[in-house]
Amino acid sequence: MRELFELCGADRELLFSPYCWRVRLALAHKGLDWQSRPIHFTDKEAIAFSGQKLVPVLTDGDETINDSLAIFAYLDRRYPAQPLLGDAQASQRARLVEKLSFHAVRMPLLKMLVPRVWQVIDPVDRDYFRSTREKALGMSLEAFADPEGGERLFREAIAPLESWLSEQPYLDGQEAGGCDYLLAGLMFWAWCLGVQPWADDSAFGAWFSRILQAYESTHGPVRRAPTQVEESQ
Amino acid sequence: MRELFELCGADRELLFSPYCWRVRLALAHKGLDWQSRPIHFTDKEAIAFSGQKLVPVLTDGDETINDSLAIFAYLDRRYPAQPLLGDAQASQRARLVEKLSFHAVRMPLLKMLVPRVWQVIDPVDRDYFRSTREKALGMSLEAFADPEGGERLFREAIAPLESWLSEQPYLDGQEAGGCDYLLAGLMFWAWCLGVQPWADDSAFGAWFSRILQAYESTHGPVRRAPTQVEESQ
Repeated sequence: MRELFELCGADRELLFSPYCWRVRLALAHKGLDWQSRPIHFTDKEAIAFSGQKLVPVLTDGDETINDSLAIFAYLDRRYPAQPLLGDAQASQRARLVEKLSFHAVRMPLLKMLVPRVWQVIDPVDRDYFRSTREKALGMSLEAFADPEGGERLFREAIAPLESWLSEQPYLDGQEAGGCDYLLAGLMFWAWCLGVQPWADDSAFGAWFSRILQAYESTHGPVRRAPTQVEESQ
Repeated sequence: MRELFELCGADRELLFSPYCWRVRLALAHKGLDWQSRPIHFTDKEAIAFSGQKLVPVLTDGDETINDSLAIFAYLDRRYPAQPLLGDAQASQRARLVEKLSFHAVRMPLLKMLVPRVWQVIDPVDRDYFRSTREKALGMSLEAFADPEGGERLFREAIAPLESWLSEQPYLDGQEAGGCDYLLAGLMFWAWCLGVQPWADDSAFGAWFSRILQAYESTHGPVRRAPTQVEESQ
């Protein structure tokens, strides 16, 4: 049996970790099923068996793997059909695409999402979330958060992806592959938190919709927090 | 016989087009020799036989190929050893790496290099250079040029590459490959124009030096315009 330990909000069906979403999408791509083990940020006991403190953690029979990229590599070794990363050269380049696209979009998204994460997490997680993030950012969450500035930066950051996706349906070409899921995980982070800084009628928006629909067609509707628009009405 | 039609300055041995440098590096990688056919921006007659107006143009026996990525693909088809782009999946990802890294570094470099290009090109090319670039940029060269701002943006843009290259010697891993040459072409553009916005003792600087030295070890010293430091002395 496969188990995926993944981050959840106060609503235990609200899953929003970008790294955990990468793994969900990868498992779905491989046609594998799994049991979800939602945990809060501070529930480190639940994953102590993995020898480290971060989700996602995947167990598969006797195997325990953490880190989204390591899980992709494991899945390709164990279940070679429909490769995520591919051979050595292709895998190297998927990791480089991940590095470049992650660098471009993560910080803009984080500026938008910090207030949303704060709203949806279990109150027991708030001190942990604040202290770890403020230490990493070197400033208070309130000083860092900037939804409007983040959205502007995000739109600039995805310009080359918009251009790319107007020429082919997926980052990996005609079929979705590892590059798509590595980036889409970050978009599920935003989308599940009720934020969508891309236009539905853009090539980028069409790409996200394709990946979301493929996932939902086999795994049912994805839980989403109320959107910002709904809240302001 | 192979001929490479490539852009030159008033000094016909000063070659600085980033796209032409990509092809030089790719030919050297394959161990192929070629005759250089340096031309000025406005010498469109010399490449009219290619059916379009931009360098690089490579001729190889009866074949004529233009566009650096198309030339990489041609070289892999015709000379499969030491692949540049690799199989379909790897090639797709090399193109995506090119798209992302080009987007990140090209504009910062251009802000630094516009005044340098103006200095080194043949006076006969200046009207062409000004009118084509001002049309594309939507402003005058003088308004666009910003060497200090460009350098700051460049250093931010290469942060993920610095991180990547501190973990492995090349973008493509343990050996230089297509991704390396596609990006290095842009660095030769700067370096040949006497501009080096990276630190020698950075991982990025070490990467550039490895590629430069490998090239010079088989093809001799690369002509470089006087550096900015020398000029200000």
